[in-house]
Amino acid sequence: MASDGVVGSTDLPVKRQREDGENGVSASTLSMEADGNGVSAVIPGWFSEISPMWPGEAHSLKVEEILFKEKSDYQNVMVFQSSAYGKVLVLDGVIQLTERDECAYQEMIAHLPLSSIPDPKKVLVIGGGDGGVLREVSRYSSVEKIDICEIDKMVVDVSKQFFPEVAVGYEDPRVTLHIGDGVAFLKAVPEATYDAVIVDSSDPIGPAQELFEKPFFESVARALRPGGVMCTQAESIWLHMNIIEGIVANCRQIFKGSVNYAWTTVPTYPSGVIGFMLCSTEGPPVDFKHPVNPIDQILSQKSDKPLKFYNSEIHTAAFCLPSFAKKVIDSKAE
Amino acid sequence: MASDGVVGSTDLPVKRQREDGENGVSASTLSMEADGNGVSAVIPGWFSEISPMWPGEAHSLKVEEILFKEKSDYQNVMVFQSSAYGKVLVLDGVIQLTERDECAYQEMIAHLPLSSIPDPKKVLVIGGGDGGVLREVSRYSSVEKIDICEIDKMVVDVSKQFFPEVAVGYEDPRVTLHIGDGVAFLKAVPEATYDAVIVDSSDPIGPAQELFEKPFFESVARALRPGGVMCTQAESIWLHMNIIEGIVANCRQIFKGSVNYAWTTVPTYPSGVIGFMLCSTEGPPVDFKHPVNPIDQILSQKSDKPLKFYNSEIHTAAFCLPSFAKKVIDSKAE
Repeated sequence: MASDGVVGSTDLPVKRQREDGENGVSASTLSMEADGNGVSAVIPGWFSEISPMWPGEAHSLKVEEILFKEKSDYQNVMVFQSSAYGKVLVLDGVIQLTERDECAYQEMIAHLPLSSIPDPKKVLVIGGGDGGVLREVSRYSSVEKIDICEIDKMVVDVSKQFFPEVAVGYEDPRVTLHIGDGVAFLKAVPEATYDAVIVDSSDPIGPAQELFEKPFFESVARALRPGGVMCTQAESIWLHMNIIEGIVANCRQIFKGSVNYAWTTVPTYPSGVIGFMLCSTEGPPVDFKHPVNPIDQILSQKSDKPLKFYNSEIHTAAFCLPSFAKKVIDSKAE
Repeated sequence: MASDGVVGSTDLPVKRQREDGENGVSASTLSMEADGNGVSAVIPGWFSEISPMWPGEAHSLKVEEILFKEKSDYQNVMVFQSSAYGKVLVLDGVIQLTERDECAYQEMIAHLPLSSIPDPKKVLVIGGGDGGVLREVSRYSSVEKIDICEIDKMVVDVSKQFFPEVAVGYEDPRVTLHIGDGVAFLKAVPEATYDAVIVDSSDPIGPAQELFEKPFFESVARALRPGGVMCTQAESIWLHMNIIEGIVANCRQIFKGSVNYAWTTVPTYPSGVIGFMLCSTEGPPVDFKHPVNPIDQILSQKSDKPLKFYNSEIHTAAFCLPSFAKKVIDSKAE
């Protein structure tokens, strides 16, 4: 199915578009056929997020205008203007961020780990090419060096072009961008380099698969100083308890400090929630549930741009789990 | 647009169906036309939840079989078997509950108020015809009397037929079902009758509109004993801060005890979250954030059916709000 034909039938204005032959939609979703970007063939003017990761359900957003649509070396990249959530970044048909709710994800994935340790100095971001995590890491005055390793340069370029309030993170002079494979990058990092590693990955089916496997977590642990912290995107308790169970069990084996699961609300992610795996290496103990470096309180004393979502209360609340999830996670984590 | 034609075109098996002439979908959603039940004309075999309450977005579920579809005196009532969330109850095109995630809503709307007061004896449920809230209220051994006032008998009957694990609440001998208008019922209630009133309503556009207005809250406050508690469904912080702001301001004027907003995750509700307004009348003080009657701990000592979602930690966490919501709600509530 050629995407040109599909999009053409929707009468959507398309600013820039290249033909891509691939169709990222599995055969099982034939009833809601779409091109590799999720632009629906059967709902003219709407984007529908369809994936074998969440079969039988789909979130749809009304499209005002497709702003960008190309195939990079790694994935289909699309940006559209939605009527309800502002501009939307889509990779391989899956929503990565929207202007309206990106604050929840970016603030939580950055501040859950960084507010849990005193004076973070060196931080590594794996993935997160949009720059939103960098923007949040930059809020810490103790930070001296921020490395980011993103595999897909097109994601960086597209974010700088269409999401300036997210990509603003790149403007911090402490940031060094490395385009390449995060797994290889970590292997080359000298032992005990970083205070914190933040893994802002896409889902474990596709290019990010390795980032959920044990060898990767071993590399992260090695790259962290004693008592250093990792925070990684860790799926939805409503949809992927089996994946989460595996991540928790792997981390429990590899990280000899704290191992905790937290979660938050992001309306445009499947099931409306996303989780985070927080781990620390052996060394000075880390109590993730009670921030020792509360960035919200530090910022409120300055005139900096205020946080939209994160605060110390929501930090602690993020570790409180529904009983069905607590039962499974506690059995693996303790 | 006749629903028969629409459903017929989807090739779905329909067990029981009656023609209904009304179309609950606004003209602005023409790009995703559906009948009054949300069975999509353009996504064959899927249900799409479309409403002017959340324009420009839609959650869709794959339909295995439509089990029930009629128009009551008040609304379109539909039950379908979904592939991802079990059986689904839909009123006027809006998902009310699914077998997979109903635990989150029912447990939170019942236990947030009832775990906050010692020994609740008389409880009134307004709406909640499916019986799920009754099921949760029944867990308290101190409760002597549970009244429920539901306007639409068809909802009760359909729940008993298709959702036996939800409607099981009706089997408790302490329950008395009143079919009628909740507003009128409350006006006739003698002053200071109930320890708790739980308002399990649909959205404020449609038959439930009055349940979000000041005269209704005044009736609730009058029906409660001093230090009695109300918990009412109170929309999504991501979608309806303007509605929430109004509810909080109204409640602050009418309830002279505590006024607090809490929220939880429900994947099949728009934006994936739903909020609750918790208020107490003047009298013995109620600290909603710290349960004095922790039902999870009481039940864990018995052999009763365990809670799936609620626990004391998630109770307290439910009152922690993202900064953008906290700012608005605190300005109205304190």
